[in-house]
Amino acid sequence: MGVEQGRVLRAPEGFLEPALVAQVRTQGLDDTRRHFLRQSLLAASSALASTQALAQTADPLITTPSLASTTLGQGVASRPYGQPSQHEGSLQRRIAQGLTKTRETSVSFTPLQSLWGIITPNGLHYERHHHGWHDIDPRQHRLMLHGLVKTPKVYTLDDLMRLPTVSRMHFIECGANTATEWARPAMPTVQYTHGMLSCCEFTGVPLSVLLDDCGFDRARATTVLAEGGDGVSLTRTIAMERALDDVIVAWGMNGEMLRPENGYPLRLVVPGVQGVSWVKWLRRLKVGDAPFATRDESVHYIDTLPDGSSRQYTSIQECKSVITSPSAGQRLLGAGRYNITGLAWSGRGHITRVDVSADGGRNWLPARLEAPVLSKCLTRFNLDWVWNGQPCVLQSRAVDSTGHVQPGIAALRALRGSGSVHHNNAIQSWQIDASGEVLNVQLG
Amino acid sequence: MGVEQGRVLRAPEGFLEPALVAQVRTQGLDDTRRHFLRQSLLAASSALASTQALAQTADPLITTPSLASTTLGQGVASRPYGQPSQHEGSLQRRIAQGLTKTRETSVSFTPLQSLWGIITPNGLHYERHHHGWHDIDPRQHRLMLHGLVKTPKVYTLDDLMRLPTVSRMHFIECGANTATEWARPAMPTVQYTHGMLSCCEFTGVPLSVLLDDCGFDRARATTVLAEGGDGVSLTRTIAMERALDDVIVAWGMNGEMLRPENGYPLRLVVPGVQGVSWVKWLRRLKVGDAPFATRDESVHYIDTLPDGSSRQYTSIQECKSVITSPSAGQRLLGAGRYNITGLAWSGRGHITRVDVSADGGRNWLPARLEAPVLSKCLTRFNLDWVWNGQPCVLQSRAVDSTGHVQPGIAALRALRGSGSVHHNNAIQSWQIDASGEVLNVQLG
Repeated sequence: MGVEQGRVLRAPEGFLEPALVAQVRTQGLDDTRRHFLRQSLLAASSALASTQALAQTADPLITTPSLASTTLGQGVASRPYGQPSQHEGSLQRRIAQGLTKTRETSVSFTPLQSLWGIITPNGLHYERHHHGWHDIDPRQHRLMLHGLVKTPKVYTLDDLMRLPTVSRMHFIECGANTATEWARPAMPTVQYTHGMLSCCEFTGVPLSVLLDDCGFDRARATTVLAEGGDGVSLTRTIAMERALDDVIVAWGMNGEMLRPENGYPLRLVVPGVQGVSWVKWLRRLKVGDAPFATRDESVHYIDTLPDGSSRQYTSIQECKSVITSPSAGQRLLGAGRYNITGLAWSGRGHITRVDVSADGGRNWLPARLEAPVLSKCLTRFNLDWVWNGQPCVLQSRAVDSTGHVQPGIAALRALRGSGSVHHNNAIQSWQIDASGEVLNVQLG
Repeated sequence: MGVEQGRVLRAPEGFLEPALVAQVRTQGLDDTRRHFLRQSLLAASSALASTQALAQTADPLITTPSLASTTLGQGVASRPYGQPSQHEGSLQRRIAQGLTKTRETSVSFTPLQSLWGIITPNGLHYERHHHGWHDIDPRQHRLMLHGLVKTPKVYTLDDLMRLPTVSRMHFIECGANTATEWARPAMPTVQYTHGMLSCCEFTGVPLSVLLDDCGFDRARATTVLAEGGDGVSLTRTIAMERALDDVIVAWGMNGEMLRPENGYPLRLVVPGVQGVSWVKWLRRLKVGDAPFATRDESVHYIDTLPDGSSRQYTSIQECKSVITSPSAGQRLLGAGRYNITGLAWSGRGHITRVDVSADGGRNWLPARLEAPVLSKCLTRFNLDWVWNGQPCVLQSRAVDSTGHVQPGIAALRALRGSGSVHHNNAIQSWQIDASGEVLNVQLG
């Protein structure tokens, strides 16, 4: 038998020499006492990696005979942080020059057409910057909480990580996602029509815990101002009712720390609300008794209605869905079986159903919703479908837990005109022609 | 007001010129008709990126005044696929030379001590290779299904992606995870004691769909053999009952395609079962009427019990948990409030509770379980705790939906001796000394 008691007992000693273990402990004592919860024993691990393989080491993981001379396989040592396959080079977030006026105010779109499930890989999370992105040293970063509080405080990352922590999956969508499609079908792929949309598991401390920690004035406080550390010190007001509900001061994103482009080391997570309120590089929170009406919220993110009036303070991302494949720019391989797949989400709760039509909205079939179906989170839907080779139009229509049914573009335009930029949650239509080519169209 | 109807109407034309849209469509027609569902319009997007910014373009995303001369911010164009912060360089999977006998049979460990939530970032997914890793061209890859079936078939990736697709979150754990801790506390950090553990959202086609598609022999078939494309053609038998339950032939991993180290472009997902059965670079499935008893399952993954007998065919990863922070190698900053956090999982169902002890198992407090709590998936737990500055021992103890309670190491050793390698699901103890240093210890 390959495994004997004696060999196993020797294994730990052979693997990690006592001198190395001692070095680990010394390293721990020499630590700066900062950032302790995330210390990963860099020095000790480097020492391990440089240790010679011990010829007499027992092997608790039974190995197969070596076939090194007959294979093209590689070892793992070269990839301490893995990367996608060389064959996935076209899977990228895409920018579009001309969409914003300067390089600092920029947008990149998530390639929804090529993604699966609900989790957006961190490297493909969409971006919307108001003045570039930053890679802040977390040891230098501070978060100030002041205003209508008993004890104003300045927190380090370590301070925050000692407080009660939560992890929750939520979508984030730019308020201007699908902005180009108000008047007519404009963009050639779902990456550009809907790609200012991502979904992550966020980890951090509830904002309510911080407000309690500073003793906010329960009698007077009605708002919290959040300020970011970017070049324009972007600021947004959060209503106190929301701040005490599900808002998170987050540092974690899909298991690891936030990426610099997404606010490293701290961002606000405001579930269900447009992305601009998820303030990145979060450095200041101020408790107030009225909306702060800063430039970023009183001048921007306002839409003009058909009667000339303005639609303002429209923060919620309403119930919406889109078929991500087949989608415009793709091409079917011929008649036969296909898996229609897409995403549905609502800023007001969870998705209760998604229906799919292959005849431009005359008939609808319920799609399967993949678990988990979570509140203010993307939901993946799938439908087994047979294409008969004839031209047709695919659509999806989501319903959320408040009963809101995703509207058609004609109905939405009748209500809001085509002068809006934000909050276009209309049903998306993809036309398949006889050759299998998929195009962005509008019906109705 | 910044937004007017006329400007918005002009935006789509300014952003995407008709010539570019036409080029996108031409590109679609010229496509190889392979891999269509994942086509991402590389050529069209490149054309967009190289287009000059149009000075007269209307801007549907209202921009703030440019402060380019007063900021250090960067644009987004340089990062089509984002990377972690420069300050996160020590967040790596770690190998340990000497643990396996050759470079091709290698292991890397996930840095659990520095991760949040339940999703493991793809770049930090643990690895256990039996003969190196491979980066296979998905256009060349095929999956054969044969044996006791009516119609043997060979599938391309495109073929598989046309079939009904599911996305599910599951943990994967090497059967030898925590192998070094059977006899005594051996490893200096949780990365080495428990780091052959990761958790992803996997996407693919249920194996049951493929078996139906080929018309498997329901009267006789009892097993499926899975074979991988690595240097040793690793093979494992899956019982038909399990194959028809929740096994997936997967290509997606946390939203994107599998990483080469994790089986790109196809791997088997066998929820709850030890990682070796999750065959990577999956190329062949054979339906049989008896266990195949291949070398990889009849010689390896066997444990010796105290009476000298062998414990064989032990595939399930039993109910287990570990505190990931504070954990060995870290150091507390002094008395006061801390968030104790960790992971719990079971190969038999979902986690129903996790209790935490700060006095070596005499008293236990229930931890908060973060949603979602899914079957055969990691569950994140947290507990708000105040350290009084005195030496103590932290432990966590999980219970799953079958009622199984995670055992102590003494109880497990009484049952299995210390000659085992696999399936050590014992309670882990972390000792905190008066200086705040955390050490790996065993109690009982």
